[in-house]
This record gives sequence, structure tokens and C-alpha cells, in this order.
Amino acid sequence: SFHMTGDGRRKSCWYEEEIAQNLRWCFALNSILHTGATQYQDIALLDTKPFGKALVIDGKLQSAEVDEFIYHESLVHPALLHHENPKAIFIMGGGEGSTAREILRHRTVENVVMCDIDEQVVDFCKSYLVANKEAFFDSRLHLIINDARAELEKREDHFDVIIGDLADPIEGGPCYKLYTKSFYESTLKPRLNKGGIFVTQAGPAGVFSHTEVFSCIYNTLRQVFKYVIPYSAHIPSYADTWGWVMASDSPFMADAEELDGRIRQRVQGENRYFDGKTFISASTLSKAVRKSLDEETQVYTEGAAKFIYGHGMLVN
Amino acid sequence: SFHMTGDGRRKSCWYEEEIAQNLRWCFALNSILHTGATQYQDIALLDTKPFGKALVIDGKLQSAEVDEFIYHESLVHPALLHHENPKAIFIMGGGEGSTAREILRHRTVENVVMCDIDEQVVDFCKSYLVANKEAFFDSRLHLIINDARAELEKREDHFDVIIGDLADPIEGGPCYKLYTKSFYESTLKPRLNKGGIFVTQAGPAGVFSHTEVFSCIYNTLRQVFKYVIPYSAHIPSYADTWGWVMASDSPFMADAEELDGRIRQRVQGENRYFDGKTFISASTLSKAVRKSLDEETQVYTEGAAKFIYGHGMLVN
Amino acid sequence: SFHMTGDGRRKSCWYEEEIAQNLRWCFALNSILHTGATQYQDIALLDTKPFGKALVIDGKLQSAEVDEFIYHESLVHPALLHHENPKAIFIMGGGEGSTAREILRHRTVENVVMCDIDEQVVDFCKSYLVANKEAFFDSRLHLIINDARAELEKREDHFDVIIGDLADPIEGGPCYKLYTKSFYESTLKPRLNKGGIFVTQAGPAGVFSHTEVFSCIYNTLRQVFKYVIPYSAHIPSYADTWGWVMASDSPFMADAEELDGRIRQRVQGENRYFDGKTFISASTLSKAVRKSLDEETQVYTEGAAKFIYGHGMLVN
Amino acid sequence: SFHMTGDGRRKSCWYEEEIAQNLRWCFALNSILHTGATQYQDIALLDTKPFGKALVIDGKLQSAEVDEFIYHESLVHPALLHHENPKAIFIMGGGEGSTAREILRHRTVENVVMCDIDEQVVDFCKSYLVANKEAFFDSRLHLIINDARAELEKREDHFDVIIGDLADPIEGGPCYKLYTKSFYESTLKPRLNKGGIFVTQAGPAGVFSHTEVFSCIYNTLRQVFKYVIPYSAHIPSYADTWGWVMASDSPFMADAEELDGRIRQRVQGENRYFDGKTFISASTLSKAVRKSLDEETQVYTEGAAKFIYGHGMLVN
Repeated sequence: SFHMTGDGRRKSCWYEEEIAQNLRWCFALNSILHTGATQYQDIALLDTKPFGKALVIDGKLQSAEVDEFIYHESLVHPALLHHENPKAIFIMGGGEGSTAREILRHRTVENVVMCDIDEQVVDFCKSYLVANKEAFFDSRLHLIINDARAELEKREDHFDVIIGDLADPIEGGPCYKLYTKSFYESTLKPRLNKGGIFVTQAGPAGVFSHTEVFSCIYNTLRQVFKYVIPYSAHIPSYADTWGWVMASDSPFMADAEELDGRIRQRVQGENRYFDGKTFISASTLSKAVRKSLDEETQVYTEGAAKFIYGHGMLVN
Repeated sequence: SFHMTGDGRRKSCWYEEEIAQNLRWCFALNSILHTGATQYQDIALLDTKPFGKALVIDGKLQSAEVDEFIYHESLVHPALLHHENPKAIFIMGGGEGSTAREILRHRTVENVVMCDIDEQVVDFCKSYLVANKEAFFDSRLHLIINDARAELEKREDHFDVIIGDLADPIEGGPCYKLYTKSFYESTLKPRLNKGGIFVTQAGPAGVFSHTEVFSCIYNTLRQVFKYVIPYSAHIPSYADTWGWVMASDSPFMADAEELDGRIRQRVQGENRYFDGKTFISASTLSKAVRKSLDEETQVYTEGAAKFIYGHGMLVN
Repeated sequence: SFHMTGDGRRKSCWYEEEIAQNLRWCFALNSILHTGATQYQDIALLDTKPFGKALVIDGKLQSAEVDEFIYHESLVHPALLHHENPKAIFIMGGGEGSTAREILRHRTVENVVMCDIDEQVVDFCKSYLVANKEAFFDSRLHLIINDARAELEKREDHFDVIIGDLADPIEGGPCYKLYTKSFYESTLKPRLNKGGIFVTQAGPAGVFSHTEVFSCIYNTLRQVFKYVIPYSAHIPSYADTWGWVMASDSPFMADAEELDGRIRQRVQGENRYFDGKTFISASTLSKAVRKSLDEETQVYTEGAAKFIYGHGMLVN
Repeated sequence: SFHMTGDGRRKSCWYEEEIAQNLRWCFALNSILHTGATQYQDIALLDTKPFGKALVIDGKLQSAEVDEFIYHESLVHPALLHHENPKAIFIMGGGEGSTAREILRHRTVENVVMCDIDEQVVDFCKSYLVANKEAFFDSRLHLIINDARAELEKREDHFDVIIGDLADPIEGGPCYKLYTKSFYESTLKPRLNKGGIFVTQAGPAGVFSHTEVFSCIYNTLRQVFKYVIPYSAHIPSYADTWGWVMASDSPFMADAEELDGRIRQRVQGENRYFDGKTFISASTLSKAVRKSLDEETQVYTEGAAKFIYGHGMLVN
């Protein structure tokens, strides 16, 4: 039974994400490459027309082949390049492997600990994300399957850079407790070497969306560290500008020229997105966002979260 | 980079069809099983949540696993059961194999000629449509790759039932010329044995949609045959009621009881949709459709089609 | 700022309904005419391209201008025409006014009681649904704002026909208790005159969808009435075949010809959808649905519903 | 007929834009406030849930209430603030009124000529865009209904700043000829006073989308002017970063501090998005975009456009 009447070029398979309750973002699909479910989450690898292969977890786009370099170069290089000599790196999360891949491009790096809770996601990405294959098999990479907080609490070694590549701090969500003031103070900071830098992805950072978590992560970190730099970049497949926050008790001294020099010296291969000028632009926020970050008063605390969930006020 | 915030149960991959310019019909997808392009058309096999595996050609749903039995039982059984002893059957189109499958369930049938123009569609369906595997390998089935009109013009044998399983008669479309009065009179009817029956799929037959092609196919056939029966059935995956028209120069004599008796005698396995009462219902059209069919005046002719396409008025 | 690059004819505003979790039905919109919220529900009147003005309640299409006649003629005329002389009619629900409009076309009718719980919906429809204006102001119509069950329990008068124009019997939904065996037996049936007929809308009746509520409403009614007729019709704007069930303790005697005669005698204006043959077709179900209705064993009871909701097993 | 089963909070009316053939962007709608058609284009004012009131022309979002300030502050203030004393301003297009509104906030401005071809769009915006009401009635604003090129060709007066607020330079589109090298050289530049500045919206400027027109507008302008500054900003409702290019034969001398000083002196009311630091960030492009702009070789010429459309090669 063939009832052909249409225009063969019409796109008929779509990936659809509700970015917010009132906002949808839809990509035409070539195919659904793999789907699966882990102990913690649903996972899929899609082949999309506008953004290439896309990793989707629990119905949310994680990273797309054509522009994940923006996210991962922005997450990794500012911190590693501002550090004088980064050798030991700890990744909280990062199971996709792209964060490790960017870190391992730094010639100074001797040891990368990647601590993700979901072994099956790591296996899925190891199998299917071709761009990260080499990184997964780099002898400097040490993969640990554990909760990042538990892992940092029990370890006694120190790191030059710790990188947070985790889900946003949604109240009641799995990662909230990895964004609190007490976690930063009592667990994370003690694991940094002198001169050490912490950087974390920090959620959407658009003119409106930065109030969801970006401003609050920024404000929490400035309670804990002396020097804190928020920065952002537009990521096409996210349909938004994304944010990161970098923090240290040592000042960030490198200017654009110095960053470019360090890239030439330390980083193998060529960056596509990040260089000195890119960082100037990314770390100079617009008036609208700058003002709102300056005025943020909320701090992520364990007690606050509990309070919001209606179990009454607890002593911090 | 894992930004999980969502509800894992949300459906995020969709098949979408514009049934009309203003009307869309969308199925959640499990996966895109196969895609390909033939010389004539694009083809895909999708695994949909609401309707199972679905064959899509040029962006239009052809048949869905869970309800194709409604279409194919309705296309095949009324004609074969009204015939006294159907032995030789000709299918125009039908490359999917489901029409052949239903025909081959009739014990009287000795020879089925299936004439489809697109060898690659036939191969695709032979490979992937499990329900039709057996039919494709039945020794009574003779597959011919040719234009059905050219094939009927050159053949000299006769058939008890000829079945039209073709795309709708869109002006300028590939199948228009297989629905014209002159084709029926000069090419098709001469290939029917005495007592022979022609049946064709006849497009949407809903309270409004029957005016697209159903009423005109009906009216064209009643210019050519003495006895013409239009009938219809709602097919969930099409989001519409579908129509067929059955025509002969011999009267259709079987009532519901007689049809049920013939099913018991002649048909292997059990029908899911079609029986005598189903045919009473299907061939008794509602007032709205009946009136509109009675009043239809348009006839498909070669000249009419050419005129519409602006190449000037031709003598019929 | 004008960034025109597109095709002006593209449809860009859409109404979208999730018919099922995996199935969507979308209409291009001309405009959103009115929106509002009542004590019980959200309500909107949309101007859609494919189906004209459409009444939407709580995100579900209730009736569309171009094809509501199929639903309302099918709900009203079979029962009124099978009755010998219907004078007094009771509508449970029906606040839209279309059911009353069809009833009031019957010359025999002297008194129509329309009992809807939501005064604001009635007022909304009275204001905006032009086709029902006249009916709302007919002196034979008596509007009562009350729960239909409470109203029937307290009344002492009797009716020739009672019509159920209510939401589907979803467990825990507002109308479930108006579809139970005990309601029919103890409350509704005592309010019918001798020879009286009850008819109710009965939810989707497609080849698959009839198992949601149609078969169970049918089976519940055949526990209570001697003669029960299920029937159905495809309604384009619902993207499904719809069902109704008609029940009485007196036999339904009129054949197609008799129905047509009564239409000529009793009904003002001309039906668009319903006549004798339409009823033959509508009440002759396909093999698939017929078999499934015959085999249905579930009965709607108050206890059953409560049990399902986990409040423990109650004595029926 | 009330078939309520759903969740009243589901969003059911949507605005949908195909940003690219494979990419859709959808906003839930509160209502469709106004629709109309002018001699040139279709126009609509929608009330969207995520972005407030939105002006849509020919199915493309033009500007949304909640974030049009980003576009219009970015279009207007950099050029006016870099100019020593901007008094006379010419707007090509701008019928929406928002560009005029931002210009009129500058105390130095004495005369604004707004030249739009579509009187009905101007009237529509004057009636419905409340935020621009005051600007439309400012005595310094002179509205002319004409093609901007024809207008500039016939005028003999000069301007301090000329602003291009036009549709993108699509080959064969209505505005292509307002982006060509010859137009800039022969028509536009002669109408600038000494020290005059030209600025134009320059289409999408994302990491990938900047190759559509942004890089080519930039490259065309650097053939014509000595000093050319491309800059960009992410606009949430466009789901992309947007670009502008500013050009002059005099150098751009103001740094961030100087810009902030001029804002305090010259601009009434407070900017929401633009200040000195915002401009540093906006005009410092990322490595990916910067490299691609540097390497752009295409120039918009009249001949090139004609050639592309297959009318043969013409002498420029």
C-alpha cells in the first residue's frame, strides 16, 4: 500500500527537548544510534542533522559532536593555563571522556583522576564516542567509579586543578551536595595543592537564564575562595549561553598574550575555540549579567536546601 | 558534561507527518531501524511507540505493524470473496508484500502476479518486513519489476481479480495514469476474465477527505463498470478513514452470511478485521459521504490532467 | 529589526494535543479567540485552520466547528428516533449546548432539562458558540447547574430519553460515578418512563482504542438493560472513531427505512450525517471490535474504582 | 460533549519557527494578539509565554518584548557613543520603532530620519508596540515611506550615523542590494558627514552561523571603510548569537571607561545591556569566529548576486 503524495525532502524524524516548560528545541534526526538505561539514568546516542552525533541523558542533551569543543575547551583550558604547572588533575563526573581528552592535551599533565558514579555511562561513551577513544586509553588517566564527594573525602592526595563536570545543582537532584559551601570548604579545598585552581561548569548563563544556578554558584564560590572568575560562551546546540566559574586562593595573573604563549608551549594540537582573546571576551560579562552576579545573595548550603524542601529550618 | 535536570520518561524522538498543510500527526519513536533511497523514492522503517514498526516512503506513512491488517484485509478479501473462484490475481504495485500475503491465504488462488516499478522497495520490504517473509517465498507469487500499465498493455493472459495497490491519483504524480477512465477501459478491463473483479485502494474516505480522490475514483469507475461498490474503514495510524472501490460487470451477489461461509471454506488462518458484517458496515456509507459520491461529476481522464498542468487543452 | 528570510506561507502557530502519551495531533491556528478558567477547568476557544473554531477544555479538544455535527447527531438522533414519542429529555452535562440544539430540532420534544455542573462553561459557550445561540434561548430548554447524579437523585419526574454527554469514566475523574452499574440501576433507570431510552457517549471506539472505556461502558449497561446497542463513527478532529451506547428495556424496532420516515416527520432542518443507513453502518461493528465487546467482562462499579485507588477492597 | 481526561497545565498552543531546515524553536503561546498582511509581508503580534509579546513577520521572529533591548541597544549605542557628537541619524528600515526609541534617548540627537518601505508595518507597530509609542511621537523623528536606497540616492543632506536595520542580504531577497559594495561606496558613504559612522545588523554570528552573512557583510565593509568593527551578542529569543558591524573612515577611539562616561553624559534613562565592558566583550570575538572573519574573501556585489541566480555573468 503506497500512498505517496508528499515532498520527499521533508524532515520527518525529530529530537525534541523541552528546555523550559514553555520552550522547545528540536533537531531533525538521521537516526537513533544507540539507546540504553543504566542504574541511574536513560542514555541515547542520536545522529542529528544540525549538530551531528548527540549524547542525550534522561531526555537532556549532554553534548553534540559539532560543538562540544566549545564546552570542553572552555571548561578545561582556562584553569589549566592559569595554573603555573598543572600536573595532577581531578575530574568530578566527566564520564563522557571529553573533559579528560582536553586535559590530556596538556603536556604538563602527569595524572588525571576521573571519578564518575555511573560505570555504564562511561562504558557507553568509551564504546561510541570515537573522538574520545584515545583519551580513554591514555595511561595517565585513572578512572574511578564512585560518588565524587565520597571519593574526595577518603583520598589524601592533592591536585593542582579540580574540575566539576556535573549536573546542575537542582534542589533534591543527585549533584546538589557537590555545589554547597560546606562541600567546597571542607572537602574540595583541602584536596587542592597550594596555587591550586577549582573550576566548575555552572549552568546556563544567558541574559535571563543565569539566575537559575550560575549566579548562585558564583556567589557560593566567592564565600570560599579569594579569587573567583565567572565566564561564559554561547553553545549553539544548547540554545543558550553557558557558564563556568573558576576559583583559587592565588590570583589569576595571565593576560591574553600570556595565555596564548602558554597554549603554544603546553597544549598539543590546535584549539578550535579557546585562546587568550576568547577568554577576555568570555570573562567580561555583559552589564545585565554582571550586575545580577554582583547582587546575588543566595549561597548553596545543605541547610538551605533542606529548608526549601519544607522539612523546616536546620542548623547548618 | 552532564546537565541532568529532566524527567527521564519524557518522549524525545518523534516521527511527524504533515497529513495536510494544516494538520500534523506525530508518533513517539523507539528507533529508526533502516533508511535508504531508491531510484524513485526515499524509504524508512521506523519503530514507533504507538503503532509498532512503520514503513515510510517519501515522508508518508505507508503501513504500520499494528494496523496494516485493516488496510490489507479490506483491500483483498471483499473482491476475492465476492468472486466465485478466484485463481489468477494481478497486483498493480504492492511491493510491500502485505497484499500478496492476504491473497495467498486464499486456497483457490493458483497464480499471483505482483507488478511493482521499484525493485529496491521490494527488496527492502522482503528483507525487513518479517510478517511478509513467507508470502515473498510462496511459489504461487510471481514478482515483476515494471510499470503496471506497460505490463498490462503487453500481457495477453487474463485475471480473475486485479488489485490496485498504488499511490493516490495526484495530478502529475507517478500513478495518475493508472486511475483514468481510458486506462480502465482500454488496458485493465480487457485483462479481466468473465466475472472478473477490479478493486483499488481509493485514498482517504473521511467525512471531508473523501472529496480529495475517493469520490472521483468511484465516479470514474462507474463510467466503466456496471457494478461499483465503494467502501471504507477507519485506520488508526492514518488518522483517517480509508476508502476502496470494487467494480465488475457481474453483480455482487454475496450477503454477510455467504461471505462468512466463503471465509470459512477458502481462507487459511483467521481474519482479524474482515468478515461479512464488517463488509456491511464498510460498504454502507454515511449520509454525508453517500450524498457526495452520488453527486460527484469529475472523471479522471488523461486530457483533464494535462489541461490542469497548463500544457493547453488536449483532445481526449 | 527585520530579519525576513522565510516563506511567508509557513504555518507557525499550532494547537497540539497529546492524544496518548506517544501520539500527538496538531492543528495550525488562525487565532486564540478566548481563554478562561472556571472553578473546575481551563477553557479555550481556538480558531483552527483545519477544523474551524474549536472548544478546548483542560487541554483536550471537546468539539470543532466543522465536524461536531457528527458527534452530536450521533449522540441525539438514534435514541430520539427509536423512541415512539419523545417529549421529556434529560441531558447529563452538555453545557456546550450542541446536544440541546439537536434535541430541540425534534418536534415531539416539549421539555429538555440540561444539567451541567460548570456554570461558567455554560456561560462561555452561550456567549461564543454562535451555532447554539438559538438553542440556549429556546423556551423548552431548562438549564440546571448541579451535579447530574445529585439532580437525578432528588428529582421525582420521569424522562423519555436520558442522554449522557459527560467526560469519560476515568478512575478518580469527575464523571466516573456517572457510569457505574449502581448509578444506572438505582438512580438513572428509575427516572426513565416506560419505553424510555438511555444513551451515552462512550469514549473512543477505534480498533484498538475501544478497550479504554467503550467496551466496559457497553458491558456495564448490558448488566442493567435488556436491549443495548453500541455504535460508532469516525470523527476527523478527534483523530479517532468515537462510540456511543444506547440502552432500553424495550426492544429497538425501527429499521433504516422507518428511521428515515421518522426523520422526515419529526426533525426540523436537514441532518448532515445521520440517517437510516448511517445507523446501519454505525451499529454494525467490525469483527475486531465486535469480538472484543462480546468478550468484555469488566463492569464499572463504585467498589472496583475504590479498590484500584488503593483504599482497600470494599464490599460492592 | 466533554471528554476531559488530561492535565490542564499542559501547554497546548505553540509558536514554531524553523530556524534552519533541520532546526526548530518553539514557544508556548498565551494568545495571538493581532495578525495582518501588508503589501509586502505577513505580520503577527503574539503573546508568548517565554519571551512576552513577539513581533513575527513572514513567519520569522523579529523581536520579543523581553529581550529586544539586547538587539536594539547593541545596534544603536556603539555607533552613537563612538561618534563625537551625533546629531543627524538615518535609519534604513526600522519600522518597528525600537531603533528610533534607542536613538532618541541620546541628548545630542536633533534629527532622526527613519526610512521604511512598508507603511502598514509601521502603522501596525505604532498601534501595538507600547514600548515605542513615545518614540513614534517624538518631534525629532521624521518617518519616510520609501525604499532606503532610492531615498539615500535622491537626498542631498548628510548624517552623522547611518543605521541599517534591514532583513539579511539573501540573494534575490528584498534587501540584498542594500548590502553591496557598490551601494556602500556610491550611495551610502557619500551621505555620511566627516567622522560619520555606519552600523548595520549583520545576521547570525554564532560559532557556525556567522558564515551565513556576518563574515561577508564584514568583508564587504572592509573593502569600503578604513575602520571596521564586528561585534556580537547572544539573544535568547533568537536561539543564536547575533552580529553587527560598525564602520567608519575615522578611527574608533573610545575605550570602555570613555564609553561609560559618554553614556552618563548623553543617554537618558539606564541601559539594561550595553556599557563599556559589554562592548569589550561583544567586540572581542572568539578564536573560531575571528579566524573565519579574517579569512573571508566573498564580497557582496550586484554582479555576483545576479550571477548566482543564473542570469549569466554581468559586468559589475
